[in-house]
Amino acid sequence: MLTARRLLTLTATGARALSAVTKLSTNNCFGGQWRRFQFDSSTTGTPMVFSVFVPPVQKAPCLFYLSGLTCTDENFVQKAGAARRAAELGIALVAPDTSPRLPEDRRLPGEDDSYDFGSGAGFYVDATNYPWSQYYNMYSFVTQELPEAVMVACPEVDVQTRSITGHSMGGHGALTIGLKQPAVWRSVSAFSPICNPTKVPWGPRRRDTQPVRQARSVTGSIHTGQKAFEGYLGSVDAGLEHDACELVKKGPRSDAILVSQGADDDFLVGDTNQLQPEAFRSACDGVGQELDLRYEAGYDHSYFFIQSFIDEHLDFHASRLK
Amino acid sequence: MLTARRLLTLTATGARALSAVTKLSTNNCFGGQWRRFQFDSSTTGTPMVFSVFVPPVQKAPCLFYLSGLTCTDENFVQKAGAARRAAELGIALVAPDTSPRLPEDRRLPGEDDSYDFGSGAGFYVDATNYPWSQYYNMYSFVTQELPEAVMVACPEVDVQTRSITGHSMGGHGALTIGLKQPAVWRSVSAFSPICNPTKVPWGPRRRDTQPVRQARSVTGSIHTGQKAFEGYLGSVDAGLEHDACELVKKGPRSDAILVSQGADDDFLVGDTNQLQPEAFRSACDGVGQELDLRYEAGYDHSYFFIQSFIDEHLDFHASRLK
Repeated sequence: MLTARRLLTLTATGARALSAVTKLSTNNCFGGQWRRFQFDSSTTGTPMVFSVFVPPVQKAPCLFYLSGLTCTDENFVQKAGAARRAAELGIALVAPDTSPRLPEDRRLPGEDDSYDFGSGAGFYVDATNYPWSQYYNMYSFVTQELPEAVMVACPEVDVQTRSITGHSMGGHGALTIGLKQPAVWRSVSAFSPICNPTKVPWGPRRRDTQPVRQARSVTGSIHTGQKAFEGYLGSVDAGLEHDACELVKKGPRSDAILVSQGADDDFLVGDTNQLQPEAFRSACDGVGQELDLRYEAGYDHSYFFIQSFIDEHLDFHASRLK
Repeated sequence: MLTARRLLTLTATGARALSAVTKLSTNNCFGGQWRRFQFDSSTTGTPMVFSVFVPPVQKAPCLFYLSGLTCTDENFVQKAGAARRAAELGIALVAPDTSPRLPEDRRLPGEDDSYDFGSGAGFYVDATNYPWSQYYNMYSFVTQELPEAVMVACPEVDVQTRSITGHSMGGHGALTIGLKQPAVWRSVSAFSPICNPTKVPWGPRRRDTQPVRQARSVTGSIHTGQKAFEGYLGSVDAGLEHDACELVKKGPRSDAILVSQGADDDFLVGDTNQLQPEAFRSACDGVGQELDLRYEAGYDHSYFFIQSFIDEHLDFHASRLK
């Protein structure tokens, strides 16, 4: 069950050795395979788990899927129903965790106290604020180390030909990463993304929230980009570098971005609009970024919504990956 | 959020009042809705939860899905990916829990000690052995009270036109219920069913097993029909009334039964063959029961297997429900 190899990988902070990648499980699915792996990440300083769907073709291009608050790789793997169409299209799927998971004896103060900061809530940034800066480097993990790990773990996958999508906090991750690296990601889409995190409410302060066990719902909960940026980066202003509405103004992509949004999403409405798709539409319009923003009547923020429209996103990416 | 009605329902043990059915949640999915309900069951003497997928048509015929050991209704709802094709075909899906769930202060001795007996392991029989006979009446629940509850909760569903399927212990439930009530269920299929439970090993004795928390895996675990029948019915012989291989000899159905079985299912191979599909094939052959037994190479016992072949089963039932 072990795939033990080593290779050198160049990350943002220099040359590091990618440790052995261990296969945790394999499940046949729609003629392909879901495979789950773990390796000791030098980017996060912790073991990191990720899943890959390998379709029944050689050199499959791939779609990275970034999950939302409180999720792991397993939410997408088990609930999105993505493998059927991915197998038909010959596209691999790559699903990382949403944060480092520190061992019991190294847990950071307050790390598990709230659902929108710390474990399960890495926000796809590289933290600069101590102590988070030691481990919470999810931007570098997703953009640098994870592609190398997939290359080692699944030689059938063409990691160099890749696109990106995600949900909620992971939609924020997909939009910002896709905008920051237009030459790396062939296409970008998102489900219910947090589009303007520097402008959305603080939410409950850390240590004031309900216990994690209650908070870890299927759908995630309150999205609080300001809180995350202050915590990881030291200020909300530092988060402008990770706000899709700001990034698109600096340099739009040459291709369309697809966003699906449930029209009855609890996080969309009223004073608690944490997602702000219209702010993203305005920002895109201002710079000529093509945006296909699809509101879906009656749909909420859950994986029932995602599974209903995942095929549309897979088709969108497939046409750009081939 | 309340659907509060009352009606009289005649069960095996006489007229009982069906209590109010409460809607717990609604999620739009593929143009239809997953709805989750709870009501106080007079058959089990406990609150019972069930889920229904209502496709976007009126008077949809329905397919009951019985889950395996350790599962609730949610495993099928979240992992099987069944709603897509069910919506296309206009078929409703009905998913009950696998056992009563007694409140903390009424828990039976040893009820939660093992994964193959007690909570999460009702085996779709009416227990005759005290104290289980007070609550563990899943046969009557599925065949009598649940259809009435669906009728109350979802008037769009044509409960009288129904078929049945299930997985593992739930495959055993589907085969046995479908064979015992040929005039009620239009068609019968199963995934990886326990086909000959009176002949498979005892498994670990109650109180000897690992803690429930460890045992509750995604896929369920060891299937021990003999243990269940002795516990619920007082003897293995009493279980012959709930053994598909025995039931088919007494009276085959007039139509084909579809069974899908992963060829690499850990529960199928060697000394620990707990499923015995070949025994069922022999029993069917002996009485002229048509059986479409499909071995799927490389597939295991998980929901990755089920989601890969659920469309085949939905198509099978749709052709018989319309």
